[in-house]
Amino acid sequence: MLKGLSRAGLGDIGSDERFIALAGEYGFQTVDIDAKGLIDRNGLEGARKLLADSGVTIGSIGLSVEWRASEESFRAGLAKLAEEAAAAAALGCRSCCTYVLPATNDKAAHFAVLATRRLRTCAQILGAYGIRLGLEFVGPHHLRTAWANPFLWTLQETLDWIDAIGEPNVGLLFDAYHWYTNGHTLADISALTPDQIVHVHINDAPDVAVEDVLDNGRLYPGEGVIDLAGFLSALNAIGYKGSVTQEILTASAPTDAPEALLKRSKAGFDKVYTAAGLA
Amino acid sequence: MLKGLSRAGLGDIGSDERFIALAGEYGFQTVDIDAKGLIDRNGLEGARKLLADSGVTIGSIGLSVEWRASEESFRAGLAKLAEEAAAAAALGCRSCCTYVLPATNDKAAHFAVLATRRLRTCAQILGAYGIRLGLEFVGPHHLRTAWANPFLWTLQETLDWIDAIGEPNVGLLFDAYHWYTNGHTLADISALTPDQIVHVHINDAPDVAVEDVLDNGRLYPGEGVIDLAGFLSALNAIGYKGSVTQEILTASAPTDAPEALLKRSKAGFDKVYTAAGLA
Amino acid sequence: MLKGLSRAGLGDIGSDERFIALAGEYGFQTVDIDAKGLIDRNGLEGARKLLADSGVTIGSIGLSVEWRASEESFRAGLAKLAEEAAAAAALGCRSCCTYVLPATNDKAAHFAVLATRRLRTCAQILGAYGIRLGLEFVGPHHLRTAWANPFLWTLQETLDWIDAIGEPNVGLLFDAYHWYTNGHTLADISALTPDQIVHVHINDAPDVAVEDVLDNGRLYPGEGVIDLAGFLSALNAIGYKGSVTQEILTASAPTDAPEALLKRSKAGFDKVYTAAGLA
Amino acid sequence: MLKGLSRAGLGDIGSDERFIALAGEYGFQTVDIDAKGLIDRNGLEGARKLLADSGVTIGSIGLSVEWRASEESFRAGLAKLAEEAAAAAALGCRSCCTYVLPATNDKAAHFAVLATRRLRTCAQILGAYGIRLGLEFVGPHHLRTAWANPFLWTLQETLDWIDAIGEPNVGLLFDAYHWYTNGHTLADISALTPDQIVHVHINDAPDVAVEDVLDNGRLYPGEGVIDLAGFLSALNAIGYKGSVTQEILTASAPTDAPEALLKRSKAGFDKVYTAAGLA
Repeated sequence: MLKGLSRAGLGDIGSDERFIALAGEYGFQTVDIDAKGLIDRNGLEGARKLLADSGVTIGSIGLSVEWRASEESFRAGLAKLAEEAAAAAALGCRSCCTYVLPATNDKAAHFAVLATRRLRTCAQILGAYGIRLGLEFVGPHHLRTAWANPFLWTLQETLDWIDAIGEPNVGLLFDAYHWYTNGHTLADISALTPDQIVHVHINDAPDVAVEDVLDNGRLYPGEGVIDLAGFLSALNAIGYKGSVTQEILTASAPTDAPEALLKRSKAGFDKVYTAAGLA
Repeated sequence: MLKGLSRAGLGDIGSDERFIALAGEYGFQTVDIDAKGLIDRNGLEGARKLLADSGVTIGSIGLSVEWRASEESFRAGLAKLAEEAAAAAALGCRSCCTYVLPATNDKAAHFAVLATRRLRTCAQILGAYGIRLGLEFVGPHHLRTAWANPFLWTLQETLDWIDAIGEPNVGLLFDAYHWYTNGHTLADISALTPDQIVHVHINDAPDVAVEDVLDNGRLYPGEGVIDLAGFLSALNAIGYKGSVTQEILTASAPTDAPEALLKRSKAGFDKVYTAAGLA
Repeated sequence: MLKGLSRAGLGDIGSDERFIALAGEYGFQTVDIDAKGLIDRNGLEGARKLLADSGVTIGSIGLSVEWRASEESFRAGLAKLAEEAAAAAALGCRSCCTYVLPATNDKAAHFAVLATRRLRTCAQILGAYGIRLGLEFVGPHHLRTAWANPFLWTLQETLDWIDAIGEPNVGLLFDAYHWYTNGHTLADISALTPDQIVHVHINDAPDVAVEDVLDNGRLYPGEGVIDLAGFLSALNAIGYKGSVTQEILTASAPTDAPEALLKRSKAGFDKVYTAAGLA
Repeated sequence: MLKGLSRAGLGDIGSDERFIALAGEYGFQTVDIDAKGLIDRNGLEGARKLLADSGVTIGSIGLSVEWRASEESFRAGLAKLAEEAAAAAALGCRSCCTYVLPATNDKAAHFAVLATRRLRTCAQILGAYGIRLGLEFVGPHHLRTAWANPFLWTLQETLDWIDAIGEPNVGLLFDAYHWYTNGHTLADISALTPDQIVHVHINDAPDVAVEDVLDNGRLYPGEGVIDLAGFLSALNAIGYKGSVTQEILTASAPTDAPEALLKRSKAGFDKVYTAAGLA
């Protein structure tokens, strides 16, 4: 399993080019960035060289298509999605991810069928380039009532949704925080096959009641109470070989220097990987 | 458009064999019956002869698969569905229908994704035999709150669901009662193409406020306030050529003799077809 | 059924803007042009006005994606396809067509599975914009041996392929020339439903043995031996309401003035529509 | 990876019940049998007990649907497929396999599209029960010309076909013999992900030119020239955890006692697993 970084938790790290360089410097193997932007700025060969020089690959791109709002805005993003998928594929990235809010102001059943069809179309376009689509279920309890109607938030609901979407290249973005806040278990991970997981997020939670954990109250790996050793160990046991990417969402951005935050991140990864017997 | 009958509204009409004979006698062109049962009792050639002798064909079979409850009960019905589809195809029937309740005690979004996948599987099996699956949206307002959570009930929601199911052989069971109780218009019909309609139900509604119309308070065509002339005329104009089948759901079964009810039904059809300029 | 024109058979007619104007002037209702190009040059409102002023709509756009060659070239066209579909939809066009050569230098079974997947992806992208994909089977016998291995060329083979592609929005581009050179019958048309036909081409064939008819030896409607009255009458009878578009492929481009060719085209349409009882 | 047995290579081993008992006795972990038959004869609990008592599970069932011939025979098998899938699922088996002959007397492209649609339907029915469909490509050169037209036989062609079928639960039955006779390499295995492999066959080939290897000239593992150590090692390295099932097709059935053949099979597995570092 590859150690990965997103920008979330690294403060004001600057350009993606600098992000790549620093990620490599601190021993990380993947970064979640905008592949198309990297190529647009550096050319394909330049982008490849930047990544290769730092010894990192792209863990996942984000799904830029607006699949939650109007049909017009959805359609308007599809041509760009094809270009983004082509860029990701050209740089060897095979994952594209989006998150699923656990509630909606729309009528839930209607939103479910619209979103099923829209995400299927996204998956089909991504699939033409060999890219997989990862859906991130979101566990913090407060978000379940942040909009009028409950939507989907558990692992099983998300697996059922993936079945409804029905494309071979759709799977989970499996985030430790959402696994924890949902009260899921190690057995829930062990029941998966690795191809069901497109991408993994890692972060930690404070020592408060699970139902009080806030989505933007995340800690660095190893600084909280989530059983990340068990989490990583279970993922490794089922054969997951992809990226495990840090994503630290906080109420306010950290003000430490990026280098300090990278060092802290590295220490967190080292701690939990070692605890999982994966060091 | 073919004039069709279901058993609903014909009282105690007896066996399907008698139903077929009487339907033919009163000038109807299709009956909604269990094709497999007819073949099981009469053999394939016997079943074909019974239909041919009365000059009727089968309008639609009903979907026997339990797609609303547990996964076990869903799976348990699939082998039988294949047999029922084979029987229907052998008798020249190309339609299979089910209705969609406008509310559910399940979490609506989760039920939506489970039902999307299950109805897709049903459509796929039916499709192997050239049979289409029709989904009937249900309009009466009181049913929208008869279970805990709102589901889907409008034409547009149902079309969106058909898109989410994503199989070429899924369309609408378009019922005049649900069109009326939803407050849909003739323009809503004109915007459809005939291949979006798998089957049509006809019946009439009492002269009460639309929001007070009860699902089991249906009248015979031409005895109520629905603009059935406009309904039929609009369906004909878009090129729909299938069955228009009477379905009179009432609080208590009618006690008149089936012949009297058939006569009444025929008079109702004659009235509204004539009013639509289709006689 | 709408009378439509493509550029094939109109000589040097100039820009699409002029093509639109002349088509309207000579009483045609649709033109097959590049919707995106029209918008690029005139803006969306300008393009809409140009069409409206001439009283014509777009019959079909062509599929620009290269689905017959390398995977790279296929992928390279998908973003543009999304843009072209968006443009077509914005101008009210719902059809996109491509032709299927009856032989291939590739291994036939392998090409079939690659093309099945690629055309499915195209259909999925088009479907996101409400556009249908029409596949044109190609009948002239000489083309069946023009490449090393036989591919698909009959109506039934093409319908079977459409089933294999498996998307709801794929159907036929039904060309009178290919219907004729395949030796298909009026009964073959009557067995179709209108939703199976995305677009229609009309043209005529010289009085030579069917197996000697050349793909680029086409005549204007009514100038040859194809039973176009029967062809149109059968299409009308099944409820086809779309465009019937002239496409006159010839060994050398006609040298008459476009106006003369339009007049000749109009006379041909008038003749065969009248013979079909559709005037 | 589980050591598995099919009946091919075990001579006259008798009933499936005896096959199960002997497989367990000789240390094998899976058997390829008819799950439905086992339940029909022993009841569900009886069948489960038989397997549990011998410590074996079912590696794969065979696809009984006739997908290579007429549409009638294809349809006739679908109800039974649902029952067979239900039986397999009830016994914990998640695989169903069929083989693909490398040539056909049908027109190759047309057969490809028919078979694509039919195998998709089979996969959809199997998928409703959580069963995967494995397609076995067939490598021996003499079979490529045993029928009139070449079909599909390489790994890449089969992967492309799986993409064309387009269902999430379709993958490979990967047979060492066909890997070898196709001249495929260890790198070809390393490029796969484990979810692309539904089932594995193992057997060995005589020391003759690859193009002269006969489909029914197979040897027991470790008795021939195939690099089975590399084969197993590569499969293990990509994370394949399923069954590796012996299938020894020979011109005439072996006449040794089943116990002798089981002993020989066990010795073969021990040899090649040890050589692969998996003992």
